[in-house]
Amino acid sequence: MITNLFALLFTAVSASSNADSLLQINADRLNANLQTLSKFGSQPEKGTSRLAYSDADKAGRQWVLEEMTRGGLSPSIDAAGNIVATLAGSDPNLKPLATGSHIDTVPQGGNFDGIVGSLSALEVARTLHESRKRLKHPLRVILFSNEEGGHTGSRALTSGLSEDDLQFKSLSGKTVEEGIRFIGGNPDQLNAAKLSPGEFSAFVELHVEQGGMLEEKKKQIGIVQGIVGIKRWMITFQGIQNHAGSTPMHLRKDALLGASEFVLKSQELALALGTPQVATSGKLDVTPNAPNVIAGKAVVSFETRDLHTDNIARLGNQVLSLAKKIAKKRKLTVQADLVYDTAPVLTDRAIENAVESNAKKMGFSTLRLPSGAGHDAQEMARIAPMGMIFIPSQAGVSHHKDEFTEPGDVARGAQLLLQTLLELDRTPL
Amino acid sequence: MITNLFALLFTAVSASSNADSLLQINADRLNANLQTLSKFGSQPEKGTSRLAYSDADKAGRQWVLEEMTRGGLSPSIDAAGNIVATLAGSDPNLKPLATGSHIDTVPQGGNFDGIVGSLSALEVARTLHESRKRLKHPLRVILFSNEEGGHTGSRALTSGLSEDDLQFKSLSGKTVEEGIRFIGGNPDQLNAAKLSPGEFSAFVELHVEQGGMLEEKKKQIGIVQGIVGIKRWMITFQGIQNHAGSTPMHLRKDALLGASEFVLKSQELALALGTPQVATSGKLDVTPNAPNVIAGKAVVSFETRDLHTDNIARLGNQVLSLAKKIAKKRKLTVQADLVYDTAPVLTDRAIENAVESNAKKMGFSTLRLPSGAGHDAQEMARIAPMGMIFIPSQAGVSHHKDEFTEPGDVARGAQLLLQTLLELDRTPL
Repeated sequence: MITNLFALLFTAVSASSNADSLLQINADRLNANLQTLSKFGSQPEKGTSRLAYSDADKAGRQWVLEEMTRGGLSPSIDAAGNIVATLAGSDPNLKPLATGSHIDTVPQGGNFDGIVGSLSALEVARTLHESRKRLKHPLRVILFSNEEGGHTGSRALTSGLSEDDLQFKSLSGKTVEEGIRFIGGNPDQLNAAKLSPGEFSAFVELHVEQGGMLEEKKKQIGIVQGIVGIKRWMITFQGIQNHAGSTPMHLRKDALLGASEFVLKSQELALALGTPQVATSGKLDVTPNAPNVIAGKAVVSFETRDLHTDNIARLGNQVLSLAKKIAKKRKLTVQADLVYDTAPVLTDRAIENAVESNAKKMGFSTLRLPSGAGHDAQEMARIAPMGMIFIPSQAGVSHHKDEFTEPGDVARGAQLLLQTLLELDRTPL
Repeated sequence: MITNLFALLFTAVSASSNADSLLQINADRLNANLQTLSKFGSQPEKGTSRLAYSDADKAGRQWVLEEMTRGGLSPSIDAAGNIVATLAGSDPNLKPLATGSHIDTVPQGGNFDGIVGSLSALEVARTLHESRKRLKHPLRVILFSNEEGGHTGSRALTSGLSEDDLQFKSLSGKTVEEGIRFIGGNPDQLNAAKLSPGEFSAFVELHVEQGGMLEEKKKQIGIVQGIVGIKRWMITFQGIQNHAGSTPMHLRKDALLGASEFVLKSQELALALGTPQVATSGKLDVTPNAPNVIAGKAVVSFETRDLHTDNIARLGNQVLSLAKKIAKKRKLTVQADLVYDTAPVLTDRAIENAVESNAKKMGFSTLRLPSGAGHDAQEMARIAPMGMIFIPSQAGVSHHKDEFTEPGDVARGAQLLLQTLLELDRTPL
């Protein structure tokens, strides 16, 4: 399968008239590296838990550092625990082009989210190094630390980390400060590591889609238009906890009924507004959560994501009214706490176009789409023009042991990343 | 408050023409005993956790044993860990009249559920003993072990305990077998403790309502018509766990949406059938239960209770169809597991009438109502005519630190229990 797909890819690339198209990433090596890294933190039947700052994370990073060294790169660890390596450029006046992603996972996650972009960045740099192809710009590969726990590594480089960020307890059990130290960073030097706008020429991240649009539309490459903003609330319905047998129906104040109605009707409101806006209630905690006790409290999450702030605001206002209306009708109290709020980040139109034109040259089918998930790229957009390339996720599954992307898709993505960087090198933004 | 209410009670009782009405329980002593027992296992702000077989349970039981001895009773512990005491009767041919309840609590429970009936049974026996009033029937006081954990003590006496019952791990952390031994019972002798139908003349249990009907209708005494049957299912909706940002709405299979619709619409079906039937979804567990992940699985409880088996069956069938319909519409799978199934138990009509006529004689207002909660009395109904007396629960609250019954209501209940037993002694069923 790998050989066949790569042969197709090679044919397409060879058909291009561009001289740089002769430069080929090593798809077999890249896919083999994906396999190797997947063993760090994997558990049979449970997927991969390579939580940032865990022993598995540290061991996986160590292997990556060694693999980068084998590839002729000279990696180092910055103050925020990011793994970085730079290929020198020929023009000392140009700021680096940068690419990268992350290799930490969610609990019981997969082996492609972040990892494809990380190992592809490594593969692209290695290909350039091995072919002695020197870019005009320096090329910076960055494997960001703790993406899944809140984009820690990329935020440290861009907006910076607060004392609260550093003292936050990560899923590894360590605080972020302890974790950064554990993986070889130096929290005391974070200010020195911070980048200013203009210090990079561009940042491009390759990533798996984590959704099913490319598969559904039978497209090979996603050209990301931007990363959606997210607004997330925890909505607490409070009723009266009581005995499920001896409390007549008309005397109940059942918090779970309120939360259930909210889940159902907030989805209807979101559907009425239409795609690509998404809205989700994924977390619902009932107190005391016993079959024979009427729920006294139910706390339900609601979040919506969109590329446009006004769409987020419109749905947000509608569901907050809905929650109040339900609470009033059901004689409950309700409180909505805004717990997460990020603005949409649009990608650089010129990078979008560079990705698209190179994909077309190689004969890859494309689809423009938003990224519904957050990425390090959205942080990097604060300091540089940013672009993202998506490749398909099988069945749209992500953050799960069944997360999978075909080796041929991985190869296409990495090759397109190389071609895009070559074009951004030739034709600065 | 106690004095005033008891003065009212005393007046009402004195107004009765019945000679036995001169016999008065000691309301102050009874309410003081409730206060004393409440200290075993109580935690500030958290209510009382006197879980069966816990140290607090053992200590509370020890205090009760001593209080019974102080009251001139000679308590013992039977094979199932029940505390029992018998006052001899004057007619050797008559089988005992029995009364009692339980003193174990749910986690973070209250100080009235079970305890009022237990300490009132003690108070009734003590009053008879102190007044040298000898009944024709023996009077058996039984404080059943581990009611909250599954009516263990009363089932041991009636239908018996299986090996599975004995090996079941109770909330105390001990198996039931270990627990029975811990509180002084002897699991090896359970067969010898078992009663046969006809061994008791009658069983009457006083209990707090654990609901709000008496309060709502401003009635002092509930005459229990029976204990509802319960049918309980755990309904598992299975969808596909996926990323809440990158999965378009139309590609989702959201298990929580299915469960929420089920909670809402199953309640509507129950309401359409009308009271006194109750239906509750009190437990809902979402997997993975994260705000940014579409729920892959949601397991929700549904139970319905009624005095009539056909009502239970009708609603049960309707909600199982509903679950299938919802799953089909939402492209989920669904599985319904029946996890609890008890038949309704009706009270003895003659005991109901004895309770009612004696309540009326004392000027207490009454309401006939079902018990929505399970009680030891439903087990005892297997071997004897059974009746129950309810007194009001403030705001209908139970299984909670705010569970409360006015001292005057406790006094009324205990006095009515005494009068009812006196009448059952005079006029056998």
